[in-house]
Amino acid sequence: MTISIEAHVAFRFDQPTDFLLQMEAAAIPEQQLSGPGLSISASEHTARVSGEDMIGERIWLRCQGDFTADYAITAQIARTIGDIQTLNALPPHRLPGETVSYLFDSRFCPADRFQPFVEAEFGGTSGGERIEAIRSWVASNFSYAPGTSDATTTAVDSFVERRGVCRDFAHVVVALARASAIPARFVSCYAPDVQPQDFHAVAEVFLADPGGEENSIGSWHLIDATGMATPSDIVKIGLGRDAADVSFLTCYGMTQLQDKRISVQRG
Amino acid sequence: MTISIEAHVAFRFDQPTDFLLQMEAAAIPEQQLSGPGLSISASEHTARVSGEDMIGERIWLRCQGDFTADYAITAQIARTIGDIQTLNALPPHRLPGETVSYLFDSRFCPADRFQPFVEAEFGGTSGGERIEAIRSWVASNFSYAPGTSDATTTAVDSFVERRGVCRDFAHVVVALARASAIPARFVSCYAPDVQPQDFHAVAEVFLADPGGEENSIGSWHLIDATGMATPSDIVKIGLGRDAADVSFLTCYGMTQLQDKRISVQRG
Amino acid sequence: MTISIEAHVAFRFDQPTDFLLQMEAAAIPEQQLSGPGLSISASEHTARVSGEDMIGERIWLRCQGDFTADYAITAQIARTIGDIQTLNALPPHRLPGETVSYLFDSRFCPADRFQPFVEAEFGGTSGGERIEAIRSWVASNFSYAPGTSDATTTAVDSFVERRGVCRDFAHVVVALARASAIPARFVSCYAPDVQPQDFHAVAEVFLADPGGEENSIGSWHLIDATGMATPSDIVKIGLGRDAADVSFLTCYGMTQLQDKRISVQRG
Amino acid sequence: MTISIEAHVAFRFDQPTDFLLQMEAAAIPEQQLSGPGLSISASEHTARVSGEDMIGERIWLRCQGDFTADYAITAQIARTIGDIQTLNALPPHRLPGETVSYLFDSRFCPADRFQPFVEAEFGGTSGGERIEAIRSWVASNFSYAPGTSDATTTAVDSFVERRGVCRDFAHVVVALARASAIPARFVSCYAPDVQPQDFHAVAEVFLADPGGEENSIGSWHLIDATGMATPSDIVKIGLGRDAADVSFLTCYGMTQLQDKRISVQRG
Repeated sequence: MTISIEAHVAFRFDQPTDFLLQMEAAAIPEQQLSGPGLSISASEHTARVSGEDMIGERIWLRCQGDFTADYAITAQIARTIGDIQTLNALPPHRLPGETVSYLFDSRFCPADRFQPFVEAEFGGTSGGERIEAIRSWVASNFSYAPGTSDATTTAVDSFVERRGVCRDFAHVVVALARASAIPARFVSCYAPDVQPQDFHAVAEVFLADPGGEENSIGSWHLIDATGMATPSDIVKIGLGRDAADVSFLTCYGMTQLQDKRISVQRG
Repeated sequence: MTISIEAHVAFRFDQPTDFLLQMEAAAIPEQQLSGPGLSISASEHTARVSGEDMIGERIWLRCQGDFTADYAITAQIARTIGDIQTLNALPPHRLPGETVSYLFDSRFCPADRFQPFVEAEFGGTSGGERIEAIRSWVASNFSYAPGTSDATTTAVDSFVERRGVCRDFAHVVVALARASAIPARFVSCYAPDVQPQDFHAVAEVFLADPGGEENSIGSWHLIDATGMATPSDIVKIGLGRDAADVSFLTCYGMTQLQDKRISVQRG
Repeated sequence: MTISIEAHVAFRFDQPTDFLLQMEAAAIPEQQLSGPGLSISASEHTARVSGEDMIGERIWLRCQGDFTADYAITAQIARTIGDIQTLNALPPHRLPGETVSYLFDSRFCPADRFQPFVEAEFGGTSGGERIEAIRSWVASNFSYAPGTSDATTTAVDSFVERRGVCRDFAHVVVALARASAIPARFVSCYAPDVQPQDFHAVAEVFLADPGGEENSIGSWHLIDATGMATPSDIVKIGLGRDAADVSFLTCYGMTQLQDKRISVQRG
Repeated sequence: MTISIEAHVAFRFDQPTDFLLQMEAAAIPEQQLSGPGLSISASEHTARVSGEDMIGERIWLRCQGDFTADYAITAQIARTIGDIQTLNALPPHRLPGETVSYLFDSRFCPADRFQPFVEAEFGGTSGGERIEAIRSWVASNFSYAPGTSDATTTAVDSFVERRGVCRDFAHVVVALARASAIPARFVSCYAPDVQPQDFHAVAEVFLADPGGEENSIGSWHLIDATGMATPSDIVKIGLGRDAADVSFLTCYGMTQLQDKRISVQRG
């Protein structure tokens, strides 16, 4: 599938301020990119560093006054899409080492606290069936309610309040998956059916590849409990343990968002 | 310096339980290891995976009933020790990519919340001088008080309550350093003067190497605000964003600690 | 029903310390008391003040060194016990003024956060039927697990972790009732079937009296989601918005509990 | 002093919704009221209940659609104003019973957690001198920053972030006073120099009356760490343990604030 993205953000910095910007689609095999890419206003310097797990890039900038970033890209998505329900979890001792960090508690996903809940609510399931049960439970029990959460809202808060936006839905899925001993990470992305159009976020979980031979390994699979995106139309920006790792802006100082316009279209 | 370590831990698992053990000194150039190493009771399986940043190892185990681990090692420490006070911070855009994650909020170190405090309290300092001011402030204002914190205590909790154990002191230093745009991580370790003898934890911060040439890079430096350990007598086990990454035991199920005996000696 | 209570607590205070003790059964019409009552070790002074809503008493004491309190009483309980399921809630505008505070958020019961949950989970019920649905849901979904919570655990924590002790069960019931616009308070008490024997805690909710005439008022009803006590065998000590109001010990300084032995018997 | 108040608020309720409104100046001896008072749009019913400690009133309303309230009053303030610095604290055992609840932890003021901090920071002071030290410390170390806090922000949050609005400044003062064993409550009010003009909030603490005779009792004293109001120009609306008790709107359902305009003038 082909997805066309246009994004514009504008900030004002009253003081000279260092900040980290992460809003470009990641250059990874599953999504082939073409187009003009990112154009930013003048900055004191620009340094690119890899995102988490070497997926996507972050850009260090330092500005005072007005800053704008315009981004335009077309992504051709060719992602292998698994039948989640039929996949097993890898037993912990067969998890690749680089997935183990995605079992641990993070800022917004204090997963260990949910162990009794997942056992009680989803105890009869495991692996992909467990993930599907979690996705379905969140989709059924949470309302999508812009304005009810903010940048400090955790999976615990969302679990109690049963509402939030894409970020919160993803955090709850990540926390419940980790509490089930299934590695889970947070993916910032673009997707065409997000309403209103904005940056989007989904979860990604690590499950065993089909076949089940003793030597098979596993793969990551995208999960969107909001129902607004599917693995075939998601353009990944970056990923990490939770939203703390993939904010589109991480700022060392004060700023005000002046403008944000996102347009994501099929074709 | 030569440090001899003996450690014994015992757990009971009522159900077959997967868990991750991380209690061995890391095999890294700055600490040369010799001795019998780790001896564990029978386990359904054993799988070793690298720790965070490829430093140290974690071991996946699965047991029911009693589990014991005995560890004996001698470490020869040859670590370059910087004069923290004289070192600069690297400006954010010159930070190596792999250190950037250590600026972000984590489970126990929600660093961004401390930005106004560090600016107000330590505003006249930067780099290693800032780190030394943070260490000194924590050392002066916090009391070492076993039993006042637990595995859920965050840097926010400790900052308010002004007390805790090594884990809490390290979390506060990490949070205040990150709020100052200085990468900081959490190190689990052994050290001989820890009273009472137990696993220990310190912070580690990333500062520019001396010389200040435009092309110099930086190094990690150990910081212990409890005053019980110094860089020359610390034997690292592992490291991560905070205690969530380097628990000596991460358990998927219920367990009870039956016994824990640590002995760390010079020579 | 006749309930006999014996309680012994011992503390040590290293410094001269003011503290507030609340462990005597309340002298209220629904429970007639007889017996020796409270005997305490020497204190610098003793001052009695009423408990919340003028129910029960608290005693201000100031001690250094060892302090012991021994309490023995027999209570004859003659409490009107309602058929909760059949009772209505009073509409908010007909609630007596003194019950309104028990709708508000308190330290351990941040009730407003649960409004979406109670609407989704118990939306088809109201009044006593709602309360019974809440009690039943907590009883079914939470495990009684000493050692999994402490004096800082809130209803949010317990709701996420689905476990706790009597204090935590009561906090969750109180929070969910308030989120349903039904006044609810926290009652510390003694009861004979509490295992292991200890101080106990339950919730109390305010519902309309039967009859439903326009001018009827309402009454408080005891609810124990742990299932260990019933309204006919509960001896109230005191009540308040949550556990913060009725700790058996509130201390301005450090102390260690040396001993606590409670025995509550029928007859 | 004479203070003239005009206030206008407008809400929209999509569903029939019960809510509690508290925005009228309290009719108490220290502030004599005259003028038209409160005028509200049509409501399904109206019921007045006393505020906490019988000071001020709350109004139960039930509406669907648009709701407006207009309030105009003139208050003549004749309040006894103490010289805080010279006043003693009452020792706990001489506190009137009705002040004891104001020592306990509440939703936004978990005071016991601040005991080590107040002892370390203000250890050499007591009574009114302690209160003045607390007020001065908050005034010096916190920045008044609208938009950095919200209705869920606690004294712990504000203490860490060192910023907030009047509500947050008052919560921190209340928490630190209670941690010092001095009863403290939260007062919602109007005051003429609040910028921008809005509802205001301050703390109130209970100290011994001058003279120090063994039989003297105590009084409540207003404290505003924001520096925007003084005891002589504050018109009290209501009070309670913290903001949870004196919201101008407590709502059982969803609403949106459409408009709020406050004008408070001297003379």
